[in-house]
Amino acid sequence: MYFKINKKDFLDKINIVSRAVSLTSPLPVLHNIKLATRGNILQLTASDSDISIEATILSDEENGLQIINEGSILLDGKYIGDMIRKIDSDFVEVEVVDGTYTSIRGLSVNFELNGIRSDTYPLIDFSEPEDSFVINSAALKNLVFQTCFAASDKETKPVLTGLNLNCEGNTMTCVATDSYRLAQKKIVLDTFHNFNVTIPTKSMNDIAKIVGDDENVRVALNEKKALFIADGVMIQTRLIEGLYPETSRLIPSEFAHELVVDARDILNALDRASFIKNEGVCIIRMELNENEINITSRSNEVVSAEKIMPVSYTGEPLTISYKGNYVYDAIRVLNALKVKISFSGNMKPFIIKSIDDDEVLQLVLPIKTYS
Amino acid sequence: MYFKINKKDFLDKINIVSRAVSLTSPLPVLHNIKLATRGNILQLTASDSDISIEATILSDEENGLQIINEGSILLDGKYIGDMIRKIDSDFVEVEVVDGTYTSIRGLSVNFELNGIRSDTYPLIDFSEPEDSFVINSAALKNLVFQTCFAASDKETKPVLTGLNLNCEGNTMTCVATDSYRLAQKKIVLDTFHNFNVTIPTKSMNDIAKIVGDDENVRVALNEKKALFIADGVMIQTRLIEGLYPETSRLIPSEFAHELVVDARDILNALDRASFIKNEGVCIIRMELNENEINITSRSNEVVSAEKIMPVSYTGEPLTISYKGNYVYDAIRVLNALKVKISFSGNMKPFIIKSIDDDEVLQLVLPIKTYS
Repeated sequence: MYFKINKKDFLDKINIVSRAVSLTSPLPVLHNIKLATRGNILQLTASDSDISIEATILSDEENGLQIINEGSILLDGKYIGDMIRKIDSDFVEVEVVDGTYTSIRGLSVNFELNGIRSDTYPLIDFSEPEDSFVINSAALKNLVFQTCFAASDKETKPVLTGLNLNCEGNTMTCVATDSYRLAQKKIVLDTFHNFNVTIPTKSMNDIAKIVGDDENVRVALNEKKALFIADGVMIQTRLIEGLYPETSRLIPSEFAHELVVDARDILNALDRASFIKNEGVCIIRMELNENEINITSRSNEVVSAEKIMPVSYTGEPLTISYKGNYVYDAIRVLNALKVKISFSGNMKPFIIKSIDDDEVLQLVLPIKTYS
Repeated sequence: MYFKINKKDFLDKINIVSRAVSLTSPLPVLHNIKLATRGNILQLTASDSDISIEATILSDEENGLQIINEGSILLDGKYIGDMIRKIDSDFVEVEVVDGTYTSIRGLSVNFELNGIRSDTYPLIDFSEPEDSFVINSAALKNLVFQTCFAASDKETKPVLTGLNLNCEGNTMTCVATDSYRLAQKKIVLDTFHNFNVTIPTKSMNDIAKIVGDDENVRVALNEKKALFIADGVMIQTRLIEGLYPETSRLIPSEFAHELVVDARDILNALDRASFIKNEGVCIIRMELNENEINITSRSNEVVSAEKIMPVSYTGEPLTISYKGNYVYDAIRVLNALKVKISFSGNMKPFIIKSIDDDEVLQLVLPIKTYS
């Protein structure tokens, strides 16, 4: 195998597939990235137990890919990124010089490392499941941003570490929850489907970072895997097994108190109180009435008190307490100027929405308020 | 105690004295910052066992300091920085409202915390030792930058964790060494002195960050302490006891090989090889002759080889090995376009200097070269 390529294009794709390299995988062959040249194509592949990525570079004027010898090799994922990054020229040459011994060259620098024969690499099935839909990459990134933070980071209930995608008809409901807070976004698809899958949020975060800013991404699903096909890159992720909880009935639909508030005002107030913690948690107590919102937070040593004005408030006065970062995160991802917070009572879950966007809903469970 | 002040001016000084707050000090009172108002002065004091800082703010139009009540209080250093930073207005009010209970207010936010009576704070003697000299703060910052990195970070030989300042006559020789590398800078003072003190490099680094970009700093020394007096700030540090080694006779004065090289070329080459490590250390092997410099680095898995051109080389060809980061650091701090590296042999310490500046000398011990 011997090829030359523009350093930047090569590094971009190396960085993409590196997301699937697990340097701690019990299968040492998976510590490598597979490089293969064929015709006018360079293909890079990497995989861990959760995610597999294949990037394809087709020779064109911009990337300057020149394939001198066809072939393939596995190169240690720990080194290859550093090597390409540190190459001292705009072009890189990669050549298997002797069996598996590989030279990576720039202008005056020559890196050498011993690769591994590519036939020891597991065969990864990137075949496309039948059921698929298309989503714009910006919408996909935004979906991940607005929901995945609410998933659990604990492995006790594995299914809660994922993002659930549930589609009956042409509305896909996407939910992440750690059972104390929940984020839900509805997306209308161009086509009709019937699926219910849960994808690891780590995979979703990787995918959101890999896809471009404005391109069409085809998402193909079956009961085993999800395959995301973007420009020159295929990303395949395992699904999380197990029944995702029926969350729709947790979401209240009737509210006794409704607050509309400037998002910047409440984010700033929550941020100011955020350093006051009890056992690592910042508890906010909020007293609401038509005229003002009193936000207090206290630890053994410190008290913070602040007053902000509501845009509007309907209902009886209410006092409610919650984890400050839960509400902060929920409001932050809405990217809204004004938010509506709807309460059913001081021990009932409450709902946060942008006043301009009904598609995204954030739900937070309050905690007991001590007087 | 009750005062108002411009948030930015107050926060600047809080950040300065916070460098001397040790949240882990066995003396709990030292977890605090002392605030005291008197006449038209606000004074902030903090201290740990190594360093004590006193910042004085004199009321003027810019800082808007307004002292409504004289008094003093100790406030927890863990919280006060966060509180001032998060205040939602350009002005801050600090008021002891009830005994030691203190309110810190902005526009709509009110932080409250329980302070401690200031008479429990140890009396810190900021009296000025008789022997003193003046140095420009830019020169002081540069001295710290060019030397302190070479000091030891191990407490086995405490004196090597410091910066030694040795003055006989009007030339002050400043040395830091971990016994594998050494950085030395000579500074000509305006006055004549006779001192030999070793200051903790941690203190020197703090002082370099505290002083302004271009102001005169008075440095006053005796056998117990060093006091740095800058604009509105006094910083006092303990000295490290013990005899500093006589380093001047370690520095060779005759050389069999002299290399002049473009600083950027060699820094880039060392940086490129820096990821190739054996047990965490990057060993560089350098082969020198009149025509080229071959730089190689190898681990069990990877080899890097690179050729750069010398500006000039005199002497027989030489092969020498060293820790890459030692030479990288030494060249980097010289801020030079071209550097001269002078060798006496492949197992003798070698010297690195800027070709334009004879005041700073970097010395590195080679390691055994295997062929």
